[in-house]
Amino acid sequence: MKAIIVGSIGLDTIETPFGIQKDILGGSAIHAALAASFFHRVGIIGVVGQDFTKEHFEFLESRQIDVSGIHRAVGETFKWSGFYEYDMNQAHTRETHLNVLGSFEGQVPESYRDAEFVFLANVDPDVQLTVLSKMRRPKFIASDTMNFWIGHKQEALWKVLQKVDFVLMNDAEIRELTKEASLPLAAKKLFSRGVANVIIKKGEHGALYFSPNDHFSAPSFPQDGLKDPTGAGDSFAGGFMGYLAYTGDLTPGNIRRAIIIGSVMASFNVEDFGCGRMRRLREDEIYRRFEDFRRFSEFEQIEPLVTTS
Amino acid sequence: MKAIIVGSIGLDTIETPFGIQKDILGGSAIHAALAASFFHRVGIIGVVGQDFTKEHFEFLESRQIDVSGIHRAVGETFKWSGFYEYDMNQAHTRETHLNVLGSFEGQVPESYRDAEFVFLANVDPDVQLTVLSKMRRPKFIASDTMNFWIGHKQEALWKVLQKVDFVLMNDAEIRELTKEASLPLAAKKLFSRGVANVIIKKGEHGALYFSPNDHFSAPSFPQDGLKDPTGAGDSFAGGFMGYLAYTGDLTPGNIRRAIIIGSVMASFNVEDFGCGRMRRLREDEIYRRFEDFRRFSEFEQIEPLVTTS
Repeated sequence: MKAIIVGSIGLDTIETPFGIQKDILGGSAIHAALAASFFHRVGIIGVVGQDFTKEHFEFLESRQIDVSGIHRAVGETFKWSGFYEYDMNQAHTRETHLNVLGSFEGQVPESYRDAEFVFLANVDPDVQLTVLSKMRRPKFIASDTMNFWIGHKQEALWKVLQKVDFVLMNDAEIRELTKEASLPLAAKKLFSRGVANVIIKKGEHGALYFSPNDHFSAPSFPQDGLKDPTGAGDSFAGGFMGYLAYTGDLTPGNIRRAIIIGSVMASFNVEDFGCGRMRRLREDEIYRRFEDFRRFSEFEQIEPLVTTS
Repeated sequence: MKAIIVGSIGLDTIETPFGIQKDILGGSAIHAALAASFFHRVGIIGVVGQDFTKEHFEFLESRQIDVSGIHRAVGETFKWSGFYEYDMNQAHTRETHLNVLGSFEGQVPESYRDAEFVFLANVDPDVQLTVLSKMRRPKFIASDTMNFWIGHKQEALWKVLQKVDFVLMNDAEIRELTKEASLPLAAKKLFSRGVANVIIKKGEHGALYFSPNDHFSAPSFPQDGLKDPTGAGDSFAGGFMGYLAYTGDLTPGNIRRAIIIGSVMASFNVEDFGCGRMRRLREDEIYRRFEDFRRFSEFEQIEPLVTTS
């Protein structure tokens, strides 16, 4: 398996101003793997319980996702229930039941250990570290996280951040972790602690890429069909890694294109509940939306200024 | 006078995490005119009191700004005092004293009435309407506003919005006015009420342009030297109009460049208190920062997708 993703696999109950859906397929690894699957075959590392149906496995396999790294444990699958208010910028948790995820250690099948592209989706940073330690020679490692781990496992989280090539966070998370309001200064703080590259996901405002020597501001998309933001960040990350695995090109220009692909996949993901939009998405739609991102953001250089009166 | 700006002229007392400055030159017309002055001569319509010093007039004239439209009234100049907390996204008002601004009606000198470029900076919408009614044949009209007028003079405000070519607002203001959380949907609501073009200023997140048939997402700038956000939106608007007056080109491609110029001028304005940065800004810095905006946001088209496994 050339590309693998470790993260949560869950059954989500989600309420937004557009409705409610119960026990639908979700979790960071699922959203990320589905987005990646439009570009490259990926394997998932995660755990499910006995209530995780055959239909879910069949759907993942229909998208060419390898499920041999999904451990089937005795008990129930991880469950998250939450809601979004009118502005839909912030998820509010009603209930979290870790269930089988609570004792998951990050078992990695032998066939995954030569993966070149590794994405550590949001999950306990100790699990991320375990999985990473089993990889033989990854060419590309990215990681995501969430506010809970910043508050509860920051030491393990720093170990992850210092080992990966690309750290993905949202703007609230990087501000919380660095205690720095300015995003450019927050990125600099991460660099001073050994982080290599930072991608800040800003939801409706697009995304930012910072490296010690480069910066890229990815445009927002004028999304007028937002239904459910759950998994947008995971879809971003999955699209980002999937496109890099597909092209095998880690040059700066292709990193930028991969960030736009991530933005494209996130923009689709939010158009329906859970994984609904990914179930019916087509490659030509991805290509056309990429063109939209260019069309909506391009502008030409000005002439040098000669001020008149 | 080919280009004119009506708005407030004030003496501001501003506190940010970087310090406090008292009774410094400010106001929407001042910030806008200073930004515009790097591209084209502009005339200001506004009012000051007897405490507005000769040095302020001399500074404005040194920037080739026409001050013959500034009415000198008996009393004190408009004064605003406010502070910004750590994240500096939101101004908190301590005191507002309208003083002579409270009875200002919008007197327009005869020499301004043939202006082709008119910017109605933030001020009482009745004053904006009075000034507009005195213009003979403007080619280009833009307007800005603030939350106070949305709450207190919404009827007059709508009259302004329906008469101008470009409405500039920040994201919080358009959400408040339209009661719509989604910015693309908020813009559509404005179009349904007769608004022609909308530019949404999003501070650190860049700016959006919506017309009924076009969209442009202007990138954010990685500002690591933010000192005082006061007047950023006015500088944006002044740069936007000043560049359009300078080029005389209202084609869609040039509207985009003018929006970037607006972003450039706002990015400079926040680097010092009040008008401090504008006092020492040079044309070559503007040109180079425009290049930075391009460098930080450009990306290439992808090849059509051929998914592999």
